[in-house]
Amino acid sequence: MDLSDRVFRYKQVIAVRTDLMMSKGKLAVQVAHGAVSSAERAKATSPDDWDAWFKEGQKKVVVKVQTADDLLELMRLASVNRLPNALIHDAGMTELEPGTMTVLGIGPAKSELMDKVTGQLKLL
Amino acid sequence: MDLSDRVFRYKQVIAVRTDLMMSKGKLAVQVAHGAVSSAERAKATSPDDWDAWFKEGQKKVVVKVQTADDLLELMRLASVNRLPNALIHDAGMTELEPGTMTVLGIGPAKSELMDKVTGQLKLL
Repeated sequence: MDLSDRVFRYKQVIAVRTDLMMSKGKLAVQVAHGAVSSAERAKATSPDDWDAWFKEGQKKVVVKVQTADDLLELMRLASVNRLPNALIHDAGMTELEPGTMTVLGIGPAKSELMDKVTGQLKLL
Repeated sequence: MDLSDRVFRYKQVIAVRTDLMMSKGKLAVQVAHGAVSSAERAKATSPDDWDAWFKEGQKKVVVKVQTADDLLELMRLASVNRLPNALIHDAGMTELEPGTMTVLGIGPAKSELMDKVTGQLKLL
C-alpha cells in the first residue's frame, strides 16, 4: 500500500489569516501554537479521539481565511458543532501588534465532523 | 510592562531543514508535528517543565539547519543533553518522498539548557 492511500479517520485543522502577511517563520510558530493548544483541549474533552488521532499519525491541515472576522465566525461554527478549538493571539514581540488574532486550531476530531465546519476552506 | 519585556524561562525549539525548499503550508504542518510530538515527550518525562512552559505562553522558536545530517547531529546533541525531542518524517503524500526527515522538535525545557544545544542556530 502506498502511503498516499492512507485514510485518516481523524484530523486537526489550523486556519490562518492571510491578511496579516506573516513571514514563513512567524506563520509556522502561530500554526504550532494553534496545533498544541487545540490538541490540549481535545485531550481534555475527548481523550479517546486524541489518542486515535495521535496514533494514526496526527494528520494536520493548514487552511486559510481572510480576516479576523472570518476567524471568529469559524470559531463560532466550531464551538456550535462541539469541536475543541483554540484561538491564538500573538504576543506581539515581532511583526504584529500585541494581541493580534492569528490562527484558530480546531480538533483533532473525526474527519467527517471536521469537514462539516472546515470542508469549504482552501489549503494554504 | 510591555509584552516584549516578558522573560520566558522555558522554550521549545523546532529546527527545519532548508535544503528541502518546503512550501509555506508544508513547512507549517511539519513544524506543528514537531511541536506536538516533542511536547508530548516532554510531558511524559518532565511534566513540571511542560506545565510551566504551557502556562508561561508556550514559547516556540523556529530555527534552520541545512541538511538531514545536520538534523541528525542536532538530535544527537539534544539526546546527549537529555532534552526531550522528536524527529519528524513526512508521510510523503505531497511534495516530498515518503519518510523524508523534515524537522526536529526539541523541548520544551529550561531556556538555559535549550540554549546549550540550539543557541547557535539562526532563526528561520
